[in-house]
Amino acid sequence: MDRKNLRVNGERLWSRLMELAQIGATPKGGVCRLTLSDEDRLGRELFARWCREAGMTVEVDAMGNMFARRPGRKSGPAVMSGSHLDSQPTGGKFDGALGVLAALEVVDTLNDAGIETEYPIEIVNWTNEEGARFAPAMMSSGVYAGVFKTEDIYATTDHKGCRFGDELERIGYKGDLPVGGRDWKASFELHIEQGPILEAENLPVGVVTGVQGIRWFTVTITGDEVHAGPTPMDKRRDPVRGLHQMLALCYEATAAEGEWARFTVGEINALPGSRNTVPGSVRFTIDLRHPEDAALDRLENAYRAAAEDAARVHNVDIVVDRIWNSPPVAFPEELIASVANAAETCGFKTRRLVSGAGHDSVYVSRVCPTTMIFVTSKDGISHNEAEYSSPEACEAGANVLLHAMLEQAGVAN
Amino acid sequence: MDRKNLRVNGERLWSRLMELAQIGATPKGGVCRLTLSDEDRLGRELFARWCREAGMTVEVDAMGNMFARRPGRKSGPAVMSGSHLDSQPTGGKFDGALGVLAALEVVDTLNDAGIETEYPIEIVNWTNEEGARFAPAMMSSGVYAGVFKTEDIYATTDHKGCRFGDELERIGYKGDLPVGGRDWKASFELHIEQGPILEAENLPVGVVTGVQGIRWFTVTITGDEVHAGPTPMDKRRDPVRGLHQMLALCYEATAAEGEWARFTVGEINALPGSRNTVPGSVRFTIDLRHPEDAALDRLENAYRAAAEDAARVHNVDIVVDRIWNSPPVAFPEELIASVANAAETCGFKTRRLVSGAGHDSVYVSRVCPTTMIFVTSKDGISHNEAEYSSPEACEAGANVLLHAMLEQAGVAN
Repeated sequence: MDRKNLRVNGERLWSRLMELAQIGATPKGGVCRLTLSDEDRLGRELFARWCREAGMTVEVDAMGNMFARRPGRKSGPAVMSGSHLDSQPTGGKFDGALGVLAALEVVDTLNDAGIETEYPIEIVNWTNEEGARFAPAMMSSGVYAGVFKTEDIYATTDHKGCRFGDELERIGYKGDLPVGGRDWKASFELHIEQGPILEAENLPVGVVTGVQGIRWFTVTITGDEVHAGPTPMDKRRDPVRGLHQMLALCYEATAAEGEWARFTVGEINALPGSRNTVPGSVRFTIDLRHPEDAALDRLENAYRAAAEDAARVHNVDIVVDRIWNSPPVAFPEELIASVANAAETCGFKTRRLVSGAGHDSVYVSRVCPTTMIFVTSKDGISHNEAEYSSPEACEAGANVLLHAMLEQAGVAN
Repeated sequence: MDRKNLRVNGERLWSRLMELAQIGATPKGGVCRLTLSDEDRLGRELFARWCREAGMTVEVDAMGNMFARRPGRKSGPAVMSGSHLDSQPTGGKFDGALGVLAALEVVDTLNDAGIETEYPIEIVNWTNEEGARFAPAMMSSGVYAGVFKTEDIYATTDHKGCRFGDELERIGYKGDLPVGGRDWKASFELHIEQGPILEAENLPVGVVTGVQGIRWFTVTITGDEVHAGPTPMDKRRDPVRGLHQMLALCYEATAAEGEWARFTVGEINALPGSRNTVPGSVRFTIDLRHPEDAALDRLENAYRAAAEDAARVHNVDIVVDRIWNSPPVAFPEELIASVANAAETCGFKTRRLVSGAGHDSVYVSRVCPTTMIFVTSKDGISHNEAEYSSPEACEAGANVLLHAMLEQAGVAN
């Protein structure tokens, strides 16, 4: 058989995606598989079983990152493909899971065709990409790349006060391997687009050239906690007034930066949270994204100015705390070309695009040549139980991944 | 002794206030004694012990309301004084507790002076005045007055899903007495002002002529839950945009109604609550107050119009649900005069004022002649750990309560 005609088994890939999605399944057809939960543990066990059935060895490092390896004719370096199995609290079936299971499908396809590669292949499940339970996101690929320290991450707590390190141990995934230092020649990550562009242009697959920069902030507005009835409005220091004014100014500043700027307030909480008490404080989060660092700087400055305005006008205190900064990333042209070639081999039209979402590949790109492949998402919806990519799109993405990895790994037999 | 010279023991009253405040004491000097919590149970047990030590009988009805009785020469009707022992989550030492313990101090003062009254005296601890854990507020005085049904209230749940009925049983205060129907000729409630008026005019005590009307709303803004990165701003249905616009319009409408209007947003929550997800919905509460029903109607209409505007402009859905309506109350002139006379007997200057806060007396006023006495609050602060009324102010209020009750109860010996 001409190797250019090699294709993955789309039905096997789809059936595994659906089986995995039963773990943490939500009534509305989504998935709640928060990192280090019991559901995360069950998802990991299923993945490990499939890897062993495909003849791979599975190792775990001290952050719970899982490495499944298929040997090559040479001992190293490996061609890697990884993503994540954790989800948002009301997430979908495809975000992360597709990348991990498509890499597994590549291995099974090579096994079925009796192909030995020159270089080994490794599949990675990165712990806590989502950052929904423990912030920040892309946590364990970040530790792998030396951006965060293991001990600091272990001390991170969720909203209930549980420590990351304790929870990792509880689910049995605090592994023995040190974090980092594996020998990789290239890394590919297949992922759903989570945006509307590919669907609008009727393309199954996209070639990703880089990732937007992301900055996370926690904003705390503090006033005076007083009874809702007797205190006249003009004698209050009401943090909710600071909130609405600051939000209005932030949305305005974001719009002024044009179509690539993204401003998201994902969490808002008034404290102590009682109907008949003016809150003592309001806390909210900002997720800011843009492909250019200069624009990120301008927007951050605009948000800080908005905080100062709102604080002055409403006589409250506002603290804007930047807790994370992930600069924009550009992937290397050689790997982008591998993906474009693979899409051509499979006969897919594609386009180049920048990822609006952060991915583990952002950090992996610091330690090895990295790129990504996108699969079209229905209505661009993600981080939502309605998230959907068709069996055809998932299969198309896996085929592009197969040929891009094969070009990098080489064929020995 | 001329009975006009009779005075309470201010030190005993203060020492009991401080002892009670140890139950649920917070690090910042406040109290967290949420209704039907273990702390509420301990507070009730201490109060019951003091009542029995003062020679009173203590009974409990099916809502957990506690009735302590001192007999009179006649068998009835009784002169009642009641308030509540539950608190806000970060509340103060005086809100509610002062009214209950001052009534107890009146009984102890009569005991010390060997005075028998013509009519019996009853002290009531009303269950769940605050409404912080289970909404609405003034819950059990409301059941007593026939405004709510016991079975409906039992089914009410807190944020954790615990049922009111189960929690009442758990703390051992689901009593045998039917709710309502006791024989009372008058009711007085001593309470801290929770506002800045008396302090500004340097008056220890105020004569309360009525209570502002209160309406509670729950507002739910629904959009689409999508990933924070890839979705362009103009393609989102972001409930946070609906939030900031609706809030701005509501504050504006409230200001236009003048100094007596009060608009409070005590709870705000974005759902599902993840930093890198545009929330699918935002839920917040409104507490609206004004002394006139016509103004309340105008404000409610303005808030509903604000919701419609914000929903249309930002392409989200907004539902405004009114969950409680407590109309303005005017107390009877005869009892107001009793309080004014009592203050004169004690040599205090006073003024008349309308309560901005709701109190159990609002519902009690539907079943017996009722009025209230206010004590000055430092900086007008309440529903806050910094809430403070001085020993002198508490003693002054208790003395006015003593003489007002004595005028209604009459002296037999």
